[in-house]
Amino acid sequence: MADPWQECMDLCVEVTRRAGEMIREALQKDIDVMQKSSPVDLVTETDQKVEQLIISSIKEKYPTHSFIGEESVSAGAPSILTDSPTWIIDPIDGTTNFVHNFPFVSVSIGFTVKKEIQFGIVYSCIEDKMYTARKGKGAFCNGIPIKVSGQEDINQSLLLTEVGFKSDPEQFKIMLANIKTILTIPVHGIRSPGSAAINMCLVACGSADAYYHMGIHCWDMAGGAAVVTEAGGVIMDISGGPFDLMSRRLIVASSRAIAERLVKEIIEFDVGRDDADH
Amino acid sequence: MADPWQECMDLCVEVTRRAGEMIREALQKDIDVMQKSSPVDLVTETDQKVEQLIISSIKEKYPTHSFIGEESVSAGAPSILTDSPTWIIDPIDGTTNFVHNFPFVSVSIGFTVKKEIQFGIVYSCIEDKMYTARKGKGAFCNGIPIKVSGQEDINQSLLLTEVGFKSDPEQFKIMLANIKTILTIPVHGIRSPGSAAINMCLVACGSADAYYHMGIHCWDMAGGAAVVTEAGGVIMDISGGPFDLMSRRLIVASSRAIAERLVKEIIEFDVGRDDADH
Repeated sequence: MADPWQECMDLCVEVTRRAGEMIREALQKDIDVMQKSSPVDLVTETDQKVEQLIISSIKEKYPTHSFIGEESVSAGAPSILTDSPTWIIDPIDGTTNFVHNFPFVSVSIGFTVKKEIQFGIVYSCIEDKMYTARKGKGAFCNGIPIKVSGQEDINQSLLLTEVGFKSDPEQFKIMLANIKTILTIPVHGIRSPGSAAINMCLVACGSADAYYHMGIHCWDMAGGAAVVTEAGGVIMDISGGPFDLMSRRLIVASSRAIAERLVKEIIEFDVGRDDADH
Repeated sequence: MADPWQECMDLCVEVTRRAGEMIREALQKDIDVMQKSSPVDLVTETDQKVEQLIISSIKEKYPTHSFIGEESVSAGAPSILTDSPTWIIDPIDGTTNFVHNFPFVSVSIGFTVKKEIQFGIVYSCIEDKMYTARKGKGAFCNGIPIKVSGQEDINQSLLLTEVGFKSDPEQFKIMLANIKTILTIPVHGIRSPGSAAINMCLVACGSADAYYHMGIHCWDMAGGAAVVTEAGGVIMDISGGPFDLMSRRLIVASSRAIAERLVKEIIEFDVGRDDADH
């Protein structure tokens, strides 16, 4: 039987590459930054343009499909996952990096059917690395198969997370406490590259052994979740339960042992859900 | 008058490129990691081989010059800066990144005469970016002139620092408190790429607006100090005084305003000096 979604994936790779080119071109020009809600939550003209390009290109071919895009949701569109074939889009993952021309900026797209991820594409466009993963068919970077490190010893691990300001003082305190706890295990180190999708791909190709985050969105996770899973990684909720795309939190790791150790060490805080208002 | 040190700089670029190739080759193979003193302080066979390559190549041409190399010092050589022409060498800056194949790994060399930096070379060898700077002649990345962002507003800035475990509980506490303080200013974000030399180059090319660190060594700083200074950056001690290559601490920034704000915000702790035992 022919793969019913391969055609969608092929289109996705093509559109993602075009989107990445648009981002690279924009980085050559001066960036007219608008402030969305806080200094760490920047949105640019490019962000919106790239999402429009992606959605219009896909809609042309698949008019009945659903879309959840960062900028559309920000403009009031619903963020609810249905059984319908759904494209979950982050036009620029790492917007702050984009604004600063910091070299980790990606286009991230995940595609779900009956709420299950069928494929994911993450294009790290400054590095020119195209990560692709089709369910059951493995993960690739620029066409070359990738796999997680397989590291099981947390003491030998390099971890990724993002170190950011939180307006809720309690959450901010817990975020910092978690970093302290993890460094004290000890681990080899913590790196903060600033793009959730690229963080997941760094775990997928074995350059880091785990990544955890509370407070991200489904569009930050959908593309990378496919890549890291197909690369042999473990993905779960921060509580240790099954990964939930709309839960705004995740752990990905090179092994179950490291993921479960992080579950034990990390203190959770409530970040709400992407589909909470619906 | 001919530039007396240009010939040294040309040799340095050549040797640094060869060293970077050696590192890239080693990354293709399995890495036999040895543990130096703690999980975050790894040293590999490659580290020592690369330093030997660099020093022997330079000594052949300049037998009377002095050398301060990370691995040589670690093996007991003195770490003291004299008036003699001195090559200050970090064969692999970002050793932990190297061990994990995390994409920020560099060869860093600074060259001093009468204790003053004459040129600096940082080769980010996975990215294949060669940063070069000759005193008074500007800074370059792969031959293209680079300059700092010029950002003066700390609220609009992206900062770099490293988030690591410290065995001294008081230092560890202060390190975390500094991160909290800086995020609360607020700034756009903090990134932790894991290579001091590359961090300085990221500020030099405007991808970040400042970098601060306490506890690094002269070989982490010498190459990057030249690059960021020649790119128009400000470099100073964490106390606000003049930058001191042997002090194990620094602030580099896109502007004096940002550097001075960081001086005000950051709590210092005692990290000793590279030349303390002499």
